[in-house]
Formats: sequence, structure tokens, C-alpha cells
Amino acid sequence: MSEPVRGYILDELEVGMTAEIERLVTAEQIDQFAQASTDYNPVHMDDAYARTTAFRGRIAHGLLPASFVSAVVGTKLPGAGALYLEQTLSFARPTRIGDTVTARVRVKSIDRESARVVLETTALVNGEPALEGEALVRVPRRRRGAAAA
Amino acid sequence: MSEPVRGYILDELEVGMTAEIERLVTAEQIDQFAQASTDYNPVHMDDAYARTTAFRGRIAHGLLPASFVSAVVGTKLPGAGALYLEQTLSFARPTRIGDTVTARVRVKSIDRESARVVLETTALVNGEPALEGEALVRVPRRRRGAAAA
Repeated sequence: MSEPVRGYILDELEVGMTAEIERLVTAEQIDQFAQASTDYNPVHMDDAYARTTAFRGRIAHGLLPASFVSAVVGTKLPGAGALYLEQTLSFARPTRIGDTVTARVRVKSIDRESARVVLETTALVNGEPALEGEALVRVPRRRRGAAAA
Repeated sequence: MSEPVRGYILDELEVGMTAEIERLVTAEQIDQFAQASTDYNPVHMDDAYARTTAFRGRIAHGLLPASFVSAVVGTKLPGAGALYLEQTLSFARPTRIGDTVTARVRVKSIDRESARVVLETTALVNGEPALEGEALVRVPRRRRGAAAA
């Protein structure tokens, strides 16, 4: 194949398959997330204010580590072509500048009739569970463009 | 009060309170979200590729409209001071460049014992439901800093 495989199709998926990415969280990423989301909550932006809160310092938006999970879903497992239907998120601990986030996806179940796949989605912060949840995606049955080859 | 109120405390919240923001989605926002999340799925970044998919053109990351909802939670209702515990997201339609997203939050229930509040969270795209779900937050019982005054 001359074209890169952009994502898994249904027949290629098996329960138990996993994928992950590791990301170092930077102040720049938090600033970019604030600009994209227009969420300038001072606990994310203003370290002096954040120090007066229970967090005792600036923390990332909760959806930033969630977006790393979403990056795994959209680019690795199942990858491009999958349609995101649902995501649940349970936040256990905050993410700070300098933290290493490991975003992990594991295929939990596959409904081959409907082409719907349940994924366990997790983010660890410095190895500790920070975010748990599940995603429901619909996966393509065949690779687009193959018929045109 | 000389200091702006940054968020609601428990006693100020009532079931049925609502808040919303409206945002026009730009290519720049999608690019910023891609940089923050490191999610460069071509369906978000590459219009030529995206035209070959069921979306027939470039779409925003699903968590971009979700981040507008999170912006309402973090900055308006309940606002700064609330601790994000859970979020569920159900995606009904994609968001495109030039779309207007209305992110809405409504207080669904309040547990005054645990200070936990359930919020209905919705995003409309050009007035049509695009994202539905619920958030669970813990709200402060008193305003920090008040005791020091």
C-alpha cells in the first residue's frame, strides 16, 4: 500500500487491543487550550489566584488530558475514520505544568452487527490515575478509497 | 464588594438556573485545539482528506464544543471554585468552521449535604442539538478569602 493506513476497520479490531501516547504538559498547551475553548478560569491561567484555592497552584483544564485520550481514539485506536458517539469522563486528580500524562485506550467490547466499539479510556498523571471513562465509537467496515484503486 | 465574584457558592445555587455562551468556530480555534491536544487527525486538519469522508469536509474535534460547555461550568455556572468530578458527552452532529455554537448549562439537582451539583450540559450548533450530557461538580460552601476580610 502506498497510502498510510489512517485507522483500523471493524474486522481488524479485537477486544484487548491497546494504544497510548505520553505527553508532557506545558504552560503553552494550557494557554492554547484556553484560547481554543475560551475558558480563562483563573485556576488555569493565574498562578497567584490558583495558589489561594484548594489546588495550591495553576492546573490544566480537565478536558486537556481528556483531549489526549481523544487524540489516541482519533489517531491510533481505532484512528481516523472512527465516529465518536459518546465519552464519559471521571476526574480523579488535576494535571499541572510539568506533569507527564499517559493517555491509554483499550478495546473493551465490539458489536460487529452495529460496528460499535466500546473503549476504556484512561489518563495517568505521573503514573497515577487521573481520568477514567469509556468511549463509544462507530468504526468503518471498509477502508474508503480502496474500491477506487 | 471590591473583588469580582468569581463563582457561585452552594447556598446561592437553585435548580433551574442557567447560563450560556455563544462562540463562532474558526479555523484558528481548531488549529489551537490540535496543538493543545496533539490531535492532528486529518478529518480535523486536512479539508481535502475530510472531503473523502462521511463528513464531506473538515470538522472540529468533538471536545472543542465540549470545551465551550466546560468554559461555562468553569467561568459562569457555578464558575471558579467548582471542582469538576464527572462529565458525560453524547455527540449528535459535528461542528464546522463558521458554525455558531451555543453552550448551555442548567442546574438539574443539588445535594446540599455533599455540596455536589448535577448540571445538564448542552451544545447547539446553529441552533440544532450537537452535544448533550451531564456534569457533576462539587461547589464551595463559602467564598475563599471572605474570612480574611
